[in-house]
Amino acid sequence: MHERALHTRATLIRAAAEVFEECGYHGAGINRILTKAGVTAGAMYFHFKSKESLARAVMLEQATDVTLPQQPQGLQQLVDVTLALARELQSNTLLRAGVRLAVDQGGPAVQDDTVYMWWAERFREELVAARREGELLASVDDAEFANVLVAAFTGTQLKSQFSTGWADLPLRIMSLWRYLLPGIATPEAAARITLDSERRLPWE
Amino acid sequence: MHERALHTRATLIRAAAEVFEECGYHGAGINRILTKAGVTAGAMYFHFKSKESLARAVMLEQATDVTLPQQPQGLQQLVDVTLALARELQSNTLLRAGVRLAVDQGGPAVQDDTVYMWWAERFREELVAARREGELLASVDDAEFANVLVAAFTGTQLKSQFSTGWADLPLRIMSLWRYLLPGIATPEAAARITLDSERRLPWE
Repeated sequence: MHERALHTRATLIRAAAEVFEECGYHGAGINRILTKAGVTAGAMYFHFKSKESLARAVMLEQATDVTLPQQPQGLQQLVDVTLALARELQSNTLLRAGVRLAVDQGGPAVQDDTVYMWWAERFREELVAARREGELLASVDDAEFANVLVAAFTGTQLKSQFSTGWADLPLRIMSLWRYLLPGIATPEAAARITLDSERRLPWE
Repeated sequence: MHERALHTRATLIRAAAEVFEECGYHGAGINRILTKAGVTAGAMYFHFKSKESLARAVMLEQATDVTLPQQPQGLQQLVDVTLALARELQSNTLLRAGVRLAVDQGGPAVQDDTVYMWWAERFREELVAARREGELLASVDDAEFANVLVAAFTGTQLKSQFSTGWADLPLRIMSLWRYLLPGIATPEAAARITLDSERRLPWE
């Protein structure tokens, strides 16, 4: 794609994220997105054929603006990635819109749970590293636990959204880890992990 | 309330559950609910002033048709209650509609998280019983864990809804417990707990 087309696509995704975040999937109007993006309908249809395909792009590209470490390293980094996501949800519009769409029962996730599988795979890679480092209990099935974690994170962010607008999400994610860690980490590894919602993340 | 008024109210809630379950909060029309219930608008307004108040009733009374044990007994019963809910979600329209509304980001839960607190309190009572029975680790904060469990259950049911229409929810809830139990139960108690998604529940 030419640079200009890429720019138009990115502008559309960002404008759509703002509108989906504000109005939800059903409430979002194409015209409002186009006005916000300053893009014509014709230019949009070159990239996205429908509101649904635009929503799917926002959902799948939700993590574009989130800085995450490149190399899997194990349990502390897995904890830290979930903490980073919890913090980003407080202010990152694209992530927030993408997550909102992913839990919308009338939205694109009903037909397509790719984004859940994507996060599960991201988390699983940290578990594979954790296994290599000797941090995991032998009983842990890494794919199973990765799915458990994605689901638990999803519900925790939704509940935090309703009760505090995500303000307490970092604390809630650390609460979740308090009860999940003993089920996956060796006692030695568990004792080394820091569950501090104020922690400065190594890659930031 | 007279018996007839109670009957009308219950009929409205059941009809509303069917329509919310099918169409979501925004898609549900009052007229469709009235037609299904065979109730006039005047009779409805005696009980519910708006679609929102009807939705709130469906959300809050979601467990009306679910048989749950009366006396808290501890960890096995806590596991079994979550298993019962997982199974009921496969076929119980009122529960399904109430849960659907509770996770709808444009629905009544945005203003009112009472139903989440209600479940957390129900789960906490089992943890109090578990503590009395010596099943809990000293480190467990029962209110904190009850909230973790509500959030984790919520996300697990949502993900199961998207990927299999709740078909795999009992298995997924047992997966969740596999990783949560070591964080709350003494090793002796954990060894006694049955995590079997096919388990016949004692109160059924």
